[in-house]
Amino acid sequence: MYDEKIEELIREKKYVQLRDELSEMNSVDVADILSSMDIHIALILFRMLPKDVAVEVFSEFSGDMRKELIGLITDKEIKDIVDELYFDVRVDVIEEMPANIVKKILRNTKEDERKLINQFLKYPQDSAGSLMTIEYVELKKEMAVKEAMKHIKETGLDKETVYTCYVTGKNRKLEGIVSLRKLVISEEDEIIENIFDEDVIYVSTHDDQETVAGIFKRYGFLALPVVDNENRLTGIITVDDIMEVIDQETTEDFQKMAAMSPSEEPYLETNTFTLAKHRIIWLLVLMISATFTGGIIRRYEDLLQSAVLLTAFIPMLMDTGGNAGSQSSTLIIRGLALGDIKLRDSWRIIWKEFKISIIVGITLAFANFLRIYFLEKVDFAVALTVSVTLFATVVVSKIIGGILPIVAKKVNIDPAIMAGPLITTIVDAISLIVYFSMASWILGL
Amino acid sequence: MYDEKIEELIREKKYVQLRDELSEMNSVDVADILSSMDIHIALILFRMLPKDVAVEVFSEFSGDMRKELIGLITDKEIKDIVDELYFDVRVDVIEEMPANIVKKILRNTKEDERKLINQFLKYPQDSAGSLMTIEYVELKKEMAVKEAMKHIKETGLDKETVYTCYVTGKNRKLEGIVSLRKLVISEEDEIIENIFDEDVIYVSTHDDQETVAGIFKRYGFLALPVVDNENRLTGIITVDDIMEVIDQETTEDFQKMAAMSPSEEPYLETNTFTLAKHRIIWLLVLMISATFTGGIIRRYEDLLQSAVLLTAFIPMLMDTGGNAGSQSSTLIIRGLALGDIKLRDSWRIIWKEFKISIIVGITLAFANFLRIYFLEKVDFAVALTVSVTLFATVVVSKIIGGILPIVAKKVNIDPAIMAGPLITTIVDAISLIVYFSMASWILGL
Repeated sequence: MYDEKIEELIREKKYVQLRDELSEMNSVDVADILSSMDIHIALILFRMLPKDVAVEVFSEFSGDMRKELIGLITDKEIKDIVDELYFDVRVDVIEEMPANIVKKILRNTKEDERKLINQFLKYPQDSAGSLMTIEYVELKKEMAVKEAMKHIKETGLDKETVYTCYVTGKNRKLEGIVSLRKLVISEEDEIIENIFDEDVIYVSTHDDQETVAGIFKRYGFLALPVVDNENRLTGIITVDDIMEVIDQETTEDFQKMAAMSPSEEPYLETNTFTLAKHRIIWLLVLMISATFTGGIIRRYEDLLQSAVLLTAFIPMLMDTGGNAGSQSSTLIIRGLALGDIKLRDSWRIIWKEFKISIIVGITLAFANFLRIYFLEKVDFAVALTVSVTLFATVVVSKIIGGILPIVAKKVNIDPAIMAGPLITTIVDAISLIVYFSMASWILGL
Repeated sequence: MYDEKIEELIREKKYVQLRDELSEMNSVDVADILSSMDIHIALILFRMLPKDVAVEVFSEFSGDMRKELIGLITDKEIKDIVDELYFDVRVDVIEEMPANIVKKILRNTKEDERKLINQFLKYPQDSAGSLMTIEYVELKKEMAVKEAMKHIKETGLDKETVYTCYVTGKNRKLEGIVSLRKLVISEEDEIIENIFDEDVIYVSTHDDQETVAGIFKRYGFLALPVVDNENRLTGIITVDDIMEVIDQETTEDFQKMAAMSPSEEPYLETNTFTLAKHRIIWLLVLMISATFTGGIIRRYEDLLQSAVLLTAFIPMLMDTGGNAGSQSSTLIIRGLALGDIKLRDSWRIIWKEFKISIIVGITLAFANFLRIYFLEKVDFAVALTVSVTLFATVVVSKIIGGILPIVAKKVNIDPAIMAGPLITTIVDAISLIVYFSMASWILGL
């Protein structure tokens, strides 16, 4: 995203000019540029940045970069930065840091804030509580619009968002919300009580981040209030943080669907052993499951001995079955994840997959027959056996691929596990049984 | 999302009370409730809603529901609703409707607006132009904050967002942006020129929606300006519309990775033949590719004839290879899509996959040897052949799974195509060649 001008300034070590350029840029880009430089030069530049910019840039650094930088700057600098961070980022930083640095940071923190930080650190990972921040605008029902606007003007700079304001009552009980747009277009002496929205949608601190993401997507909110057991406002979650959650949840689905244990770390930042560990378990499980398939073949060894040619079509049958099943399961898994497909649609889905499988099965079986009978000059009986098996395999695979994710969802297993790899293993066994039965019957072996 | 109270009111046909309840609810939920009712009752309720609520609810309906409803209401009602819709939704509605209704809608539209609608209809699907809307707040550099706030107060109700305002110069040239937050916290007589942000990030009308989504994710923006070739502001895109785009792009990746032609329609709304068509092409291609695998087996028919037992391990070898390769390709495809992995990382990735494959390969080969030698009591030589092949297959699969998505990206093919199904087909052939070579060598056949 950054251009030649910046690169040239870096090459020519014109740091003052560079500082001026960087100060004007979006902090995301600045963080990117500094991260790609030698850490000592990055440190020089970082120290030259205006304080407010430096804090923003620090928020955008990766965990590794933050750690590296904190190792190099003074305690005073650490404190100055950490104090200015938004509360959610501050908690993240503290969570990532080694104990001795955390001690340093907390030593200078006031008692009540330290308590609050500790409370936030306790929220389960992936919960609404772990995503929220405390910098929101709090208003009272009795306020006039003018008063509210004055309050926002005075405190707005330090809030994560000012565009949705939260109306609270006794003990910070959440009573409603009012948007800044509404405040701006209302008359100055209007009372909040008359213009605020009481039917407010909120989540609770222990709700899962997937639920939270779902609400943002459904309603297109910019921010969402988070309440505790007693309906007291404890924080807010903003839409920019949710975009990351959406990507993260989808990545987890991708990983599970490719038979891996999910991980939140980016690929290049994860070490080899961890990556290997995440992959081995499922591969082992699936490998051992494939024993059944081997067992089936061994049971029909005599049949294969007298018609070895049949072996040649096993890979094609198994692969096509696996692919056909994966197609169905992928669509259903994704539909369930997005909420396009509900459990009450189960029978409609199975019926639909059945109809599709008939069309797909006939087309493939026909194409296959033409190819192996006319092009490969295979026996009519063998060609027929293979094609009929292919048809049956496609139908069975698609139905299994359609049913398994739904069953998983029903019994509260993540449907993403019922994807390609598992479906393939199951379909392999079934297609072989069909194949050998057909062969014994049609070929009379 | 709606509760028993609403269901009871529906059952008891207390429509007036129901109307009052619905008017207080979020329009997304109201649209959901009406869509699940008998269309004639939905129509009655829809007509009872306050006009502004009705328009919002209409915006939230699915295309099918909109069509159904438009078929039942009068031309005047259609016009009243369409006139009040945000411009991007209006264009969508016009795009979806049959020609005779479009004519009706456009007949009463002013000349310049009709031109604008036609221009918007021409933007390619999935382009920034097709996502944007024209309801934004436009300010001038010379304005004082007070003037700007007055302008927002007067026009803000009809804008898609008021939280980012766009500063334009002569000929609507985009000169910068200023946030409502900045306006609110600034002094009333401050001039926009002194507080607005000139380094503004924007997209152009023909940029792809994936690019747009990437920018929203990277910077956490609430809205993004769209300019034409001459840098004139033509519209804005808001973050709520981008959430849908992100889901849509991910779904496309899922579909491609499961060997389907991508489709934007939700599963249940797509008819059987279309779904079947999207699946057949890739299945056919992959089925025919599997011919090579069959060819390899036929070449080694004699070898198999003398050791039919070898056949029993073919499925396990092929499946494990396919799964190992899919794991690698899935992680790389996802990393490329999210921008976590860049093309310049290619060698690091291949080296990493190689190291991982050694660890995974040794573990699986060892486990497999123990299982088939000690549990299945297979010959030492056969067990060795199978295990060595397994090791080689895992290593080759993971490297192929790591390389192919990167190569695809380099030659501008969507990396998502290089996923499980294709990798499996390639790996099948390789693993069989290794298997039979090993068998000839170790077993001396």
